[in-house]
Amino acid sequence: MLTGLLGTAAIPWPRELRAEGGNAASDLPLPDTHWNAAVPTGLVPQKLPLLRLSDRPIVLETPRPFFESLLTPNAAFFVRYHLDVIPNAIDLSAWRLSVGGNVSRPLHFSFSQLLSQFEPVSVVAVNQCTGNSRSRFFPRVAGTQWGNGGMSNARWTGVRLMDLLNRAGLRSHTVALRFQGLDSGRGAEGTPSHAYSKSLDPEDPILQDCLIAYQMNGEPLPMLNGFPVRLIVPGRFSTCWIKHLSWIEALTEPDQSHWMMNAYRLPKKPHYSTTPEEVALGKLSTIPASHAPMPVRSFFVLPDGSSKLVVRLPIEIKGIAFSGSGGIRQVEVSTDGGRSWRLARLDPDLGPYSFRGWRLAWTPRQPGRVELCCRATDGKGNVQPMEPIWNPGGYAWNVVETQTVFVGESA
Amino acid sequence: MLTGLLGTAAIPWPRELRAEGGNAASDLPLPDTHWNAAVPTGLVPQKLPLLRLSDRPIVLETPRPFFESLLTPNAAFFVRYHLDVIPNAIDLSAWRLSVGGNVSRPLHFSFSQLLSQFEPVSVVAVNQCTGNSRSRFFPRVAGTQWGNGGMSNARWTGVRLMDLLNRAGLRSHTVALRFQGLDSGRGAEGTPSHAYSKSLDPEDPILQDCLIAYQMNGEPLPMLNGFPVRLIVPGRFSTCWIKHLSWIEALTEPDQSHWMMNAYRLPKKPHYSTTPEEVALGKLSTIPASHAPMPVRSFFVLPDGSSKLVVRLPIEIKGIAFSGSGGIRQVEVSTDGGRSWRLARLDPDLGPYSFRGWRLAWTPRQPGRVELCCRATDGKGNVQPMEPIWNPGGYAWNVVETQTVFVGESA
Repeated sequence: MLTGLLGTAAIPWPRELRAEGGNAASDLPLPDTHWNAAVPTGLVPQKLPLLRLSDRPIVLETPRPFFESLLTPNAAFFVRYHLDVIPNAIDLSAWRLSVGGNVSRPLHFSFSQLLSQFEPVSVVAVNQCTGNSRSRFFPRVAGTQWGNGGMSNARWTGVRLMDLLNRAGLRSHTVALRFQGLDSGRGAEGTPSHAYSKSLDPEDPILQDCLIAYQMNGEPLPMLNGFPVRLIVPGRFSTCWIKHLSWIEALTEPDQSHWMMNAYRLPKKPHYSTTPEEVALGKLSTIPASHAPMPVRSFFVLPDGSSKLVVRLPIEIKGIAFSGSGGIRQVEVSTDGGRSWRLARLDPDLGPYSFRGWRLAWTPRQPGRVELCCRATDGKGNVQPMEPIWNPGGYAWNVVETQTVFVGESA
Repeated sequence: MLTGLLGTAAIPWPRELRAEGGNAASDLPLPDTHWNAAVPTGLVPQKLPLLRLSDRPIVLETPRPFFESLLTPNAAFFVRYHLDVIPNAIDLSAWRLSVGGNVSRPLHFSFSQLLSQFEPVSVVAVNQCTGNSRSRFFPRVAGTQWGNGGMSNARWTGVRLMDLLNRAGLRSHTVALRFQGLDSGRGAEGTPSHAYSKSLDPEDPILQDCLIAYQMNGEPLPMLNGFPVRLIVPGRFSTCWIKHLSWIEALTEPDQSHWMMNAYRLPKKPHYSTTPEEVALGKLSTIPASHAPMPVRSFFVLPDGSSKLVVRLPIEIKGIAFSGSGGIRQVEVSTDGGRSWRLARLDPDLGPYSFRGWRLAWTPRQPGRVELCCRATDGKGNVQPMEPIWNPGGYAWNVVETQTVFVGESA
């Protein structure tokens, strides 16, 4: 089927755009539409057309070409809410961030006080949904069927979480720090929660790197990404990056909320992976996703399969990689479906929590179908697995990615 | 009207997304929708949703947030055709680039020969429609009513035009070099042309910098941007960047085609500007746009007015600038409607034909409405004018840009 097409660079056209006398080329392979969720785009304030996975709550996936720049534009940054009622206007003259519970000095900060009373600090960090790429899981699992666009990267600027906690004075016997924002209302069926909150362990070393961000890429946060401030937990899944952060509470008892006890729990096993059979036994040990570093991942950004490549025309294969454990040490690329690997060149380092750009020059020598694979190794030596992982939540997918491309004859 | 709103950061929401109990905020100013054309997006192969100004011929404008990266992603690169019939499939085994007319050795190059017989050369260059921003003209003029998104920037790689011409051997008495591509068919009413072509002067120094590009940002060109090769004329309007380039012809008589004699002609006056009265006299002297350097321009990318700024929250104002005459020497920014100006910091230089990024830290001190202005000076000392320009084609707009932003109280 393919052979007859190798001499052309045809792309499939909607009927209304086909030129008179042109080739319909309807038997050519379609671009790799499932890198992203294959859903229509939605238009909401402050955002470009993004892929609309859900309306209530609002869930938007970032289309692949935005990953050509390492910092995702705010207008393209993905959106994920859990509850129905989300703020669309916040009066900063009335808004306060409160720190309470088991502290020496309960505090209420105005926005202006956050700006003036603390040193501003910045970090570049990837925000990734725990369920990013969930649509790859087999057997299929429930939940939002994300493609790969449930992630984005930004430079976050704000106040160190520890500066606030030190001001309030955490008291002994604090066993959890609970963070809650302004989104509220009915959750999905069977989730008895009218507020969204997550907890971190007060002994967790990640607290030293956490920010309460009032800026995202040098601008106020878009409303749908957490205006006026958002908790930034670098290297962790976005499940604990609480938007519209309003309350921090030091707990003396473990957090028994739905969001910590039932949702977003990962198997306490290599690659957070288990089997349906093991789950059925009912003895699987799990940990909250907010306590677990994001596993190492890498992605092809270009080529994206939307057009044929040309024999002997060199191209630059480009991608991104990231990890919650010490940044990216190396990225390998295979142009033969995983049989042999070459080291990609890494782009400048924006910090261990950022997307790391990588690239590799490649000249296709033969016409035909090629399976490209990319595989990253992080700062702690973790490598992406070749074999699928599985867990009932559809979380933490990080299997080696494949990109199919077609190469045509140039003469 | 504004005073009562200064304490909020409300944004206007479509009705279906408004939270229960939220403020409708329907009296807040809308974002600056007219930076771009305010038209629906269109979906075509190899492209993200772009702003669809026309269907036949296909014309797509690049939305503003894509200018956050200096190199426009191929999938967001603007598209402008003149004629109805455009190729949707090109068989590279049959395709040839021919050089003929008044030359010593008429030549026909295969794609493979272009790759193997010439040194590859790269240039970063802005491609801008002559009519970009035409919608600003007053009195209104006919033609595609572009916002500011009829421009994009890419790294072009290919063969030097001069290498090809030297191989063919231009003979004496050549007075024009005509370039033609594969798009054809009916043009707009009253334009008696079934092919699109443009000519350059064989003495024009720009010929030394022209490329015949087979790559755009490290990939084969998208079909809608000229696959398999496109003429790159750095610093000139895209009217002469012939897509799907197929024929180069050395002429011994002036090019009398519609596209050179009638369309795309600029007043031979400062800022290419005239008046309706002067045109009515019928004595206006004009030159082809393909012979004229693009005038210096600068744009705000962020903030874009889609959300309110916050008193005392510092932001980074970001933008781009470019010119067809020696690159960008400086960019000035006003935060008081043009009364006073500060120098912006220029980002690294990608070459004199590229977008040049610029940025300026700014902390709004007072609530209220602010008019930001940006003004660039190019390498030859040309400065953007404050006063509107006008010409009957709606070409070469380069008046200083204004961005309205609203600043709210943070406490």
